[in-house]
Amino acid sequence: MRTSVLATVESHRCFGGTQAVYLHNSESTRSPMRVGVFQPEGEGPFPVLYFLSGLTCTEQNFITKASVQRYAAEVGMMVVAPDTSPREVDIPGADESYDFGTGASFYVDATEPPWASHYRMYSYVTHELPKWIAQHLPADIHRQGICGHSMGGHGALMIGIKNPDMFRSVSAFSPICAPMQCPWGQKAFQGYLGNDAQAWAQYDSVELIKARGYARELLVDLGSDDPFVVQQLKPELLQAACRQRNVRLSLRWQSGYDHSYYFISTFIKDHIRFHADRLR
Amino acid sequence: MRTSVLATVESHRCFGGTQAVYLHNSESTRSPMRVGVFQPEGEGPFPVLYFLSGLTCTEQNFITKASVQRYAAEVGMMVVAPDTSPREVDIPGADESYDFGTGASFYVDATEPPWASHYRMYSYVTHELPKWIAQHLPADIHRQGICGHSMGGHGALMIGIKNPDMFRSVSAFSPICAPMQCPWGQKAFQGYLGNDAQAWAQYDSVELIKARGYARELLVDLGSDDPFVVQQLKPELLQAACRQRNVRLSLRWQSGYDHSYYFISTFIKDHIRFHADRLR
Repeated sequence: MRTSVLATVESHRCFGGTQAVYLHNSESTRSPMRVGVFQPEGEGPFPVLYFLSGLTCTEQNFITKASVQRYAAEVGMMVVAPDTSPREVDIPGADESYDFGTGASFYVDATEPPWASHYRMYSYVTHELPKWIAQHLPADIHRQGICGHSMGGHGALMIGIKNPDMFRSVSAFSPICAPMQCPWGQKAFQGYLGNDAQAWAQYDSVELIKARGYARELLVDLGSDDPFVVQQLKPELLQAACRQRNVRLSLRWQSGYDHSYYFISTFIKDHIRFHADRLR
Repeated sequence: MRTSVLATVESHRCFGGTQAVYLHNSESTRSPMRVGVFQPEGEGPFPVLYFLSGLTCTEQNFITKASVQRYAAEVGMMVVAPDTSPREVDIPGADESYDFGTGASFYVDATEPPWASHYRMYSYVTHELPKWIAQHLPADIHRQGICGHSMGGHGALMIGIKNPDMFRSVSAFSPICAPMQCPWGQKAFQGYLGNDAQAWAQYDSVELIKARGYARELLVDLGSDDPFVVQQLKPELLQAACRQRNVRLSLRWQSGYDHSYYFISTFIKDHIRFHADRLR
């Protein structure tokens, strides 16, 4: 299957630019993939911010609920929001739970059957999607950043830390900081990667920082009323790893906020500016 | 059934305030009704903007997709977004079409059976809901405005024009301007109000303006790429009626925009400021 030309699922004028959803055939996931793209007014080339969403989301959640377009328009940034997993692939059980399979890729390249045939979102996000964006849209792929929420916050941190030359700015909302040490991550890594602890560590932000450090600053926002902090997100492990390796981590506790898109919409402006400053 | 105390369905901190959804038993519709309320930071009392949504919407669409909270927080305004019809009432056929029945009340008091027993959204929005808001929340009911989109734009114009002392500011996105003269409106008015043209005229903004004028300014935004303009929205009829009665209508064509919430989110700031200026 060749990476296809873009098919436009929807397109709307928004803050002087265009919010579209495109559909293309992915070689990585061997499936059609949807991706939301906000393109600001003008000719570009524009810096690009990738946003990875959380469990149960599609490409729609971020583009409809985060109020991001105004700020992206203000700084002239393209925002690319892929889907959170392949869909409608022929894998029995893919739709059985909210935290594994459809809508729950964890942005890894699965090695265990039957997932390995389609669940290759790490390759999709780090290789195929940026190439496809560069080919079809006025993007400056030398100026790319990555952000995400919850499972997608894990994805953004993990992908950003592993690929510092590709993604020059990294931030996250409410990230799963240490998937190897929380129930959501353990279930997913077991299913996608099997029992190999070394394979797990390749996709765990805390282990990655401990092993290789990270030379840029990380911005992380968390809500003080987020019900997932203690059992699933474990930001204290990210803080400890960053302290150990002298990584600059700006971790902000936002008082009274929860895990929802109402939280993201309130602080997305700060993240857009964080990325814009680093992608000039 | 007594108007109940408020039950909180959900509540999220957002832009320093709170975005909640409440559930209460409505006497008007003889059903439980959901209503989204953004309450800004502080003690109030706050001016109140009602927002009426369009066909197929619930209270969720506006509160999740319009990016309104930032601007409401900036000016210290409460925003109240009711559902678009009663739900789960025992009326055969209520769920059969997208443009009549559930999600499609047209904000009238139905007189035809079987709708008359529950579809009394005009009374709900103009009497019961403001009273309920005043009773339970720090609202200043002497400073109320109304806005809406599409079917809810019709609702906002119609209710605002009929109740100028209650709603001191009125605006709309992509409103159905003359329901008596378009297919959506004709179907709904026939079903809810029967064949009585005088009954229809009570709920038609163009007829209301022709009959009684309107002393305040109206703000209306329309997208030049809105596919419903010609057949359903008919803004030229509103312009003609306003011209005839010397009503100040600020009708703005927004180039390239469509009928979606991406359009609303781009211009909601202007509407919030329009209302805030008039509710000082």
